[in-house]
Amino acid sequence: MKLVTFEIASPVGRVERIGALTDAGIVDLNLACAAQLAASGDTGRPFEIADALLPPEMIGFLAGGALSRRAADEALDFVAEGTRTGPDGAQLLYAEDAVRLLAPVPRPNSIRDTLSFEGHMINFERRTGKKTPPRWYEAPIYYKGNPMSVIGPEEEVPWPDYTEKLDYELEFGIYIGKEGVNISEEEAPAHIGGYTIFNDISARDVIPGEVQMFLGPAKGKDMDRGNIMGPCLVTPDELDAGNLEMMARINGEEWSRSNSTDMYHSFARIIAYISRHETLYPGDFIGSGTVANGCGDEMERWIKPGDVVELEVEGIGILRNRIAEKKG
Amino acid sequence: MKLVTFEIASPVGRVERIGALTDAGIVDLNLACAAQLAASGDTGRPFEIADALLPPEMIGFLAGGALSRRAADEALDFVAEGTRTGPDGAQLLYAEDAVRLLAPVPRPNSIRDTLSFEGHMINFERRTGKKTPPRWYEAPIYYKGNPMSVIGPEEEVPWPDYTEKLDYELEFGIYIGKEGVNISEEEAPAHIGGYTIFNDISARDVIPGEVQMFLGPAKGKDMDRGNIMGPCLVTPDELDAGNLEMMARINGEEWSRSNSTDMYHSFARIIAYISRHETLYPGDFIGSGTVANGCGDEMERWIKPGDVVELEVEGIGILRNRIAEKKG
Repeated sequence: MKLVTFEIASPVGRVERIGALTDAGIVDLNLACAAQLAASGDTGRPFEIADALLPPEMIGFLAGGALSRRAADEALDFVAEGTRTGPDGAQLLYAEDAVRLLAPVPRPNSIRDTLSFEGHMINFERRTGKKTPPRWYEAPIYYKGNPMSVIGPEEEVPWPDYTEKLDYELEFGIYIGKEGVNISEEEAPAHIGGYTIFNDISARDVIPGEVQMFLGPAKGKDMDRGNIMGPCLVTPDELDAGNLEMMARINGEEWSRSNSTDMYHSFARIIAYISRHETLYPGDFIGSGTVANGCGDEMERWIKPGDVVELEVEGIGILRNRIAEKKG
Repeated sequence: MKLVTFEIASPVGRVERIGALTDAGIVDLNLACAAQLAASGDTGRPFEIADALLPPEMIGFLAGGALSRRAADEALDFVAEGTRTGPDGAQLLYAEDAVRLLAPVPRPNSIRDTLSFEGHMINFERRTGKKTPPRWYEAPIYYKGNPMSVIGPEEEVPWPDYTEKLDYELEFGIYIGKEGVNISEEEAPAHIGGYTIFNDISARDVIPGEVQMFLGPAKGKDMDRGNIMGPCLVTPDELDAGNLEMMARINGEEWSRSNSTDMYHSFARIIAYISRHETLYPGDFIGSGTVANGCGDEMERWIKPGDVVELEVEGIGILRNRIAEKKG
């Protein structure tokens, strides 16, 4: 299933909903569930039960587990039979261009970003002469991002005045779907709720000064609207995450191309490592880190204000954003 | 005002409330507000209006701003006049030992921890021979912690099986009270909602391997129940944060003593730095970093399972926790 969070204008203001991408368009899952329950004649409270069973926001849906997934499958079957309107005139189906897509999880519970692609490390070694520490091969390392700074596809990316070298990073990542602690590598796949594309915007000229201080990147990563995710969440049953072509295009020109097969630390291993004595929760996001040649820094090639950055990951889609003009 | 979040047992399960510490005991602020509104005769909806004006959870209260603070002052005046019970028999006052204190904000919106005490850097220099980079003096640096791992006073601290050198860190910190971005150093104090004590539990033998990787500490800091805060939130009008004695005692013996006057980067400067192109929100926590001699690592002295760690900061109180036995 390909899931999205979308925003629609209404007479009482903007409303956020979750939906499933289908051939017919985007199905509003919560209202499709309510419509199906109402049509069944089995309850007089279709909206209340749908709100609990298939809530209109993504973390609630992920946390709902198999019960919510089953409700979504049934709601989609119901809409596929031809119903387009629910009780009280609710709209069950939208054309993709009639709504605004947000990030699949507009406010993740947390963001951790790893450094899991060996090719990225080898390129860094080659350019800087600094050897990758053996520790890198032993266990995945990560830093934490700011989950309040997430935007989705087609939103404009501001250019902070404290950097001359804004950069994109071609990554993908997972959302945790099921709470757990001390999760084994074998159990880990069951904790993955879905995959999305991640563009980890970085102020490349700020990071070197910061990382000398042993605390990792700070303002080099942390800026409003600096964590771009989308366009959808693909559930694990629909994706072979170990073999996905990954591309970045700047103004239509291909700058980066790689494949997820190069990931040295798998997401299962990453989950096992992070969850040691630390609980993972539905809505936690974990990034892969940059693929080899997946950022301008690796090629000493730099994006500029006004550029359009497109990240594409096979099976997930295209995440496109325009870089804004620089403001003081 | 000294504010706490506390938990009480009730026939329908545990309930979290916020309160003010007074000479008479802990006042349940939300219910005191409702009682005062009911007694005024000005409304038939005292509970609903109190829930909006003075919600029973700390981030909502901080975000409520001056309006919520005024309601709290009036509610305390009302209780001080002698009323002990609100409408429907609600209890307005608790003895301190009748409730369980949680962290003032049980789940902060975020945790950033800085490295702002020069003495801590100088001690590190002396011990390791590594000179503090000039960058440290230019602007505060920080890493991000896990806000899901917060516990309060008297809760037991687990000892993860992956470390032999668990350590305490004597710190204090602020909660942001008011949203803002690009906040100047002059405007910054108005964004501070309050202060608390912070014990940043660290796996000292894990950190050195991690920080070689340029991403800062990860599992060396991240573990369930590893961020201890409390016992209360002190509003800025009641504290001279620039001159506070700070002490750590292990099993009653003083190991650390310092003063907040040694802080090289003030919280105002820290807020100005972090908020560049990045919005700060009510409930964000920012730590001072360890004071000079404020952790076992600086003295090569190590806590062990079963020890009781007490951090005391003048004007805030004592944050006491027992270290649990090590478990596999």
